[in-house]
Amino acid sequence: MPIKSTNITRVHSHVHLKDRWARHGHRGGVLWFTGLARSGKTSLALGLEKILFDECYRVRVLHSQNFRIGLSSDLGFSREDRREHIRRVGEVAAFLARRGVVVVTSFISPFALDRANARAAVGEGFHEVFLDPGLAVCEERDTDGIYARARVGEIPEFTGVSDSYEAPKVPELRIDTGVLTVAESLDILSEYATRAFRLPRA
Amino acid sequence: MPIKSTNITRVHSHVHLKDRWARHGHRGGVLWFTGLARSGKTSLALGLEKILFDECYRVRVLHSQNFRIGLSSDLGFSREDRREHIRRVGEVAAFLARRGVVVVTSFISPFALDRANARAAVGEGFHEVFLDPGLAVCEERDTDGIYARARVGEIPEFTGVSDSYEAPKVPELRIDTGVLTVAESLDILSEYATRAFRLPRA
Repeated sequence: MPIKSTNITRVHSHVHLKDRWARHGHRGGVLWFTGLARSGKTSLALGLEKILFDECYRVRVLHSQNFRIGLSSDLGFSREDRREHIRRVGEVAAFLARRGVVVVTSFISPFALDRANARAAVGEGFHEVFLDPGLAVCEERDTDGIYARARVGEIPEFTGVSDSYEAPKVPELRIDTGVLTVAESLDILSEYATRAFRLPRA
Repeated sequence: MPIKSTNITRVHSHVHLKDRWARHGHRGGVLWFTGLARSGKTSLALGLEKILFDECYRVRVLHSQNFRIGLSSDLGFSREDRREHIRRVGEVAAFLARRGVVVVTSFISPFALDRANARAAVGEGFHEVFLDPGLAVCEERDTDGIYARARVGEIPEFTGVSDSYEAPKVPELRIDTGVLTVAESLDILSEYATRAFRLPRA
């Protein structure tokens, strides 16, 4: 969509980002999960949030379903609406990251351009995490039958079946959630997060 | 706008809200500032954020200009777009309040219905704060000439001049920022916030 707001100056908080970092004990940033339906995004995002919260991180999950109920409730599933949906996720993630929070986003986000735009909105501290068990494993895990419904055309433009998934070419982290257990994946993620959001040496 | 997303179930964090409250030492909620241009919203929102941050609150300001650059960059200034703008503010504020954060919003938000919708989205912990020096004082403070431009029709649908401002009938807090200084207003606000977001007695 075209940008309609112009000539607007950003307002800056009187609280400096480095003071937030010092208070939090870590930097802000975004772990942007991407992957097919049933690739493990929700379980790992919620599990990682709990682990990091227990380690006293400032952490929030942005989840597709909650966004669809709230901020994106005016949007449908057309290509344009899905793009706008992901744009909003990127903006909210960027806002929180700039306030020193660790954000974990859980969205299929199939298009490389949309993810690149989110990366640009966030700037430094954006980490693309590709959850990649492969399509066959995702379909096997189809407990609620959404892949089956997509295969017979009941759900149109379903990512991986009737619409494309543009896999990240160079994600910061790739996890094969078809081979690793949830616990193993969470170990990797929490270790990664600890390193990614560590404060710079003084 | 009609709600286009249906049949979607909310996903719940594994971190309980009460555990967030206990960690933060206060509840989450929203101080929803409303008032004309030059009524003091920005100064008081940024000043209050600094005070509460220094007192170790989890606090964020949502500011109109930053929203216009980011999340609402696809929106213009038609009645419908302004409504959608405020709807998004309400959803982001609600999300953060449900994560135990104190949110201060700085938007003219002239229409009672939009503010009522934001109140409904947030639920418990929503506090409408009416900054009310009166139109004459705001026009006097017109350092950058926006009221003057509105008076000659250069800015159409300008709140208070060529478009209506629906003053809150029963705001939780009203501050006459024409009489009180910034420091006095901040005293009132920080005392109000301390009481409003105090943890319930165990």
